[in-house]
Amino acid sequence: MPKKLGRYTIEFENKIFVQSFSAVAGKKESEGPLKEFFDKIFQDTTLGEETWEKSESKLQSQVVKLSLKKAKLTSEDIDYIFSGDLLNQNISSTFGLKKFGIPFLGQYGACSTMAQNLVLASIFIESKVANRTLAVTSSHFCSAERQFRFPLEYGGQRTPTAQWTVTGSGSVILGLEKKTDIYINKVTVGKITDLGIKDQNNMGAAMAPAAFETLQNFFSDTETIPEDYDAIFTGDLGAVGSNLLRDLLIKEKNIDISKNHKDCGLIIFKRKEQDVHSGGSGCGCSASVLCSYILSKLQKKEFKNIIFMATGALMSPTSVQQNEPIPGIAHLVNFRTV
Amino acid sequence: MPKKLGRYTIEFENKIFVQSFSAVAGKKESEGPLKEFFDKIFQDTTLGEETWEKSESKLQSQVVKLSLKKAKLTSEDIDYIFSGDLLNQNISSTFGLKKFGIPFLGQYGACSTMAQNLVLASIFIESKVANRTLAVTSSHFCSAERQFRFPLEYGGQRTPTAQWTVTGSGSVILGLEKKTDIYINKVTVGKITDLGIKDQNNMGAAMAPAAFETLQNFFSDTETIPEDYDAIFTGDLGAVGSNLLRDLLIKEKNIDISKNHKDCGLIIFKRKEQDVHSGGSGCGCSASVLCSYILSKLQKKEFKNIIFMATGALMSPTSVQQNEPIPGIAHLVNFRTV
Repeated sequence: MPKKLGRYTIEFENKIFVQSFSAVAGKKESEGPLKEFFDKIFQDTTLGEETWEKSESKLQSQVVKLSLKKAKLTSEDIDYIFSGDLLNQNISSTFGLKKFGIPFLGQYGACSTMAQNLVLASIFIESKVANRTLAVTSSHFCSAERQFRFPLEYGGQRTPTAQWTVTGSGSVILGLEKKTDIYINKVTVGKITDLGIKDQNNMGAAMAPAAFETLQNFFSDTETIPEDYDAIFTGDLGAVGSNLLRDLLIKEKNIDISKNHKDCGLIIFKRKEQDVHSGGSGCGCSASVLCSYILSKLQKKEFKNIIFMATGALMSPTSVQQNEPIPGIAHLVNFRTV
Repeated sequence: MPKKLGRYTIEFENKIFVQSFSAVAGKKESEGPLKEFFDKIFQDTTLGEETWEKSESKLQSQVVKLSLKKAKLTSEDIDYIFSGDLLNQNISSTFGLKKFGIPFLGQYGACSTMAQNLVLASIFIESKVANRTLAVTSSHFCSAERQFRFPLEYGGQRTPTAQWTVTGSGSVILGLEKKTDIYINKVTVGKITDLGIKDQNNMGAAMAPAAFETLQNFFSDTETIPEDYDAIFTGDLGAVGSNLLRDLLIKEKNIDISKNHKDCGLIIFKRKEQDVHSGGSGCGCSASVLCSYILSKLQKKEFKNIIFMATGALMSPTSVQQNEPIPGIAHLVNFRTV
């Protein structure tokens, strides 16, 4: 039986093993530091499709195919698929995954979606309602820009605190069978946190309070400290949000994560050279960093116990236009190796 | 341990009891046949808010408050809340629920969301990761019209196959404690089904194939027949979709549901008199019918064993403009009484 630690954290009785993982990315991402870790790079970010929305859908279908192939499974072997994305009504997921015919549960956690999918996918395995589950998400710079900000053709200026939406996708298959040495041990579900930030060009600041909330809940529930983990990955707070998170933890709780904290939005790009301002963002940012760099390092035992906490900004262009604040959320997954 | 029946259906070992349920609705809904079943009616559908989006959020916060009160619980007693809605980036849910401080998992299943929420909320109870969970969703005619169709002020004509978005919300609290006689026994998760329907004014036709798929999977997985159930509620296929579903089941599988099939979109309004064309729709349609009429009838033992299957059309205005088809999905929950 799973154990509830405190109010927010679940410790699994079973080892929820990663069966396989894969990540795909676009041209700009391939020019960053993680190039060698991606399974597939699309230099042509249209992926041969007529619309950016269909290009993003194809990122998801490609990455799911790769994960199935690596685990030597077919879509019939997957009991449930958890997916979501940033586009209105989750259309990248719907259109990208419909042909697989896998029972589908659509998720929305903005850029926290990969962690949310993993929380649900692992609980389904732990509870024995599923033998194998798949978690996937994506984002695409071009579909996100035109939906959330400006048409690309407009060539709008970006503010220094703005983040750059990653073109990429990551997927993980989970199950009880030990196909890799990596397993999910604990998960923490976040709550909606709103400190009244209204600047949609500063998502890092909007998400940092949620990241603070979930991370300190996790440490408190598990009675652990940052040094117990090889690395603490947040995604995607960027430069502004990362600094805010570290400051909040020190000032409010005297918790120092500076030694082993890394942000997915900061490690996917060479920030200054690639002109991405505060760093990468989008559901596909933390998902593609997790499913390339992070899980590879776990597989090689360079990491043995890490925290993956994805953060999301729960706004829409409508709520921003209506001058509403930007609530944030963060969900956390603790990966370990046997 | 839960039992997997066939590929799609889960039978719970535990009785996942409904702790409380409540439904709120707008003026037009209060003029329909279910008036007496709603807990609260808002004659002023602005709910005193400045924007329709905030009005819809308030439907959710009001209905959650009612469910907590009826179950004599506070938000601290709820381990996880599952919510989603039709608005871009789920803002009705985010803004309606943020003040409760309950760990939040945002869902997107279009009009199937209430069933999806109940599937997840019951699996969390069965797996013992939660003591109590809450499932809620909403829709609002005015926020949906302007996002999916036309600004209200435009006064666009509606086609005969179009459905009318319900202004309403429903919520259910689940747990192992026997606070009512109603429990969830089985759930079936649907897969994305796309037969190429492209008419966004005929959602019933787009969703009927998904409803057919899930319902026949449920009958086949459980080895039961329509007559085993006091009623089979779909939501919200409307008149066009309901006829298509019945025809498909007869023609493809020789399953006759005509004796006990009811559609939430057809029972919430007096269809002809209230001029709602093919019937009601929206996440709040099946949710408010479930949490008023259906669960009340179960509580009074007028029903003892029913099927609740909510259906969703997984399109966005963008995908429709791009001439993509409208994929559908349907999730199913089997409620019984002790």
